[in-house]
Amino acid sequence: MYAQITQFRKMLQTLSRLLDKARAHSEADRLPPEGLLTSRLAADMLPLTSQVQMACETATLAVSVLAGRAIPQFPNTERTIPELKDRIARTIDYVAAFKESDFSGWEDRRVAPPGWSGAFRGEDYFYQHGVPNFYFHTVTAYAILRHKGVRIGKMDYIGQLPFLR
Amino acid sequence: MYAQITQFRKMLQTLSRLLDKARAHSEADRLPPEGLLTSRLAADMLPLTSQVQMACETATLAVSVLAGRAIPQFPNTERTIPELKDRIARTIDYVAAFKESDFSGWEDRRVAPPGWSGAFRGEDYFYQHGVPNFYFHTVTAYAILRHKGVRIGKMDYIGQLPFLR
Repeated sequence: MYAQITQFRKMLQTLSRLLDKARAHSEADRLPPEGLLTSRLAADMLPLTSQVQMACETATLAVSVLAGRAIPQFPNTERTIPELKDRIARTIDYVAAFKESDFSGWEDRRVAPPGWSGAFRGEDYFYQHGVPNFYFHTVTAYAILRHKGVRIGKMDYIGQLPFLR
Repeated sequence: MYAQITQFRKMLQTLSRLLDKARAHSEADRLPPEGLLTSRLAADMLPLTSQVQMACETATLAVSVLAGRAIPQFPNTERTIPELKDRIARTIDYVAAFKESDFSGWEDRRVAPPGWSGAFRGEDYFYQHGVPNFYFHTVTAYAILRHKGVRIGKMDYIGQLPFLR
C-alpha cells in the first residue's frame, strides 16, 4: 500500500506547485489571485479552491479508512493560495506518516466510507472509487488553471523525475 | 495487478457512457456531435477526440510494459462518436485479456516506456506516471463535456455500484 500512496504525495506536491504558478501568473498580470481561486469550468461545478480542498479530503479519506483509522476533519476554510498550500502540506504530512504495516490486510478490509450505504472490499473501494475521485479533483484543478490561461503545461502535471519513494 | 487494472476497465466504460451522453446532448440540441469532439479547454490543449484516444493509449501502454509485452499500435484515426466507442471497447478487451500471472514480478520489473530515457521500476512507473497520465485524459474528457454544457454530473464520472471484478 505504501507504493500506492506515493501517488497521493506526488500529485499533492504537484497541486502545490501549480498554485505557485497561479500566483506568479496573477502577479505578472497584476490580478488578484483570488480570481483564479473562484474560477470554475461550468457554473454548477466547484471552483478551484474546492477542487484543491477535495483532492486533500479524498486522499485523507482513502488512507484513513484503509488503515481503519478515524477520519480527521479539516474544515474547508481556506481562501488564499498560501492557506491552500498549507492545507496541502498538512495533507502530505498526514499521508506520509502512515507505514506499510498500518495497512495490513487492507485489500480485504471491509470499509464503509461516510455517506455510503453498505461496506465494500478495501481494494475495490480504493481502485474504483478513492483513486478516481482523487484524480478527478486534481486534474480538474489543473484544467481550471489551464482554461484560465495560466502558463502551465502537461509536464507541470506529470512532474519531474526521480519518482518519489 | 489485476485489481489495479479494474480501474482502467471501469473508467473506460465510463468514458464510453459519457460519449453516449454527448451524442444525446447533440441530438437534443440538433447540433453535430463533431462539435463536441473538436472542443478543448484551451487553444493549445488537445480536443475531446484526442483525450479519449490518449486515455486508451495510456491504459494500453501501462498494461503492456508491465507485462513485458510489445505495445500494440492503434492508429488515432477515429473521427466520430461510434468510432471512439469502438476504440474504447477494443481497449477494454485488450486490457481485460491480461491475467494476474502475466504481471508476475511487475513491481520490480525494469520498464523503459517509449520516448523515455532510462528504465524505471514497474511500481514507480505505474503509480507515478501511468495512472496519473490515464486519469489526466479521462478527467479532461469529462471536463470538456462539462464545460460545453453536456448534462452530466459527478456520478456519471464516479460510476455505479457494484464494483467491477
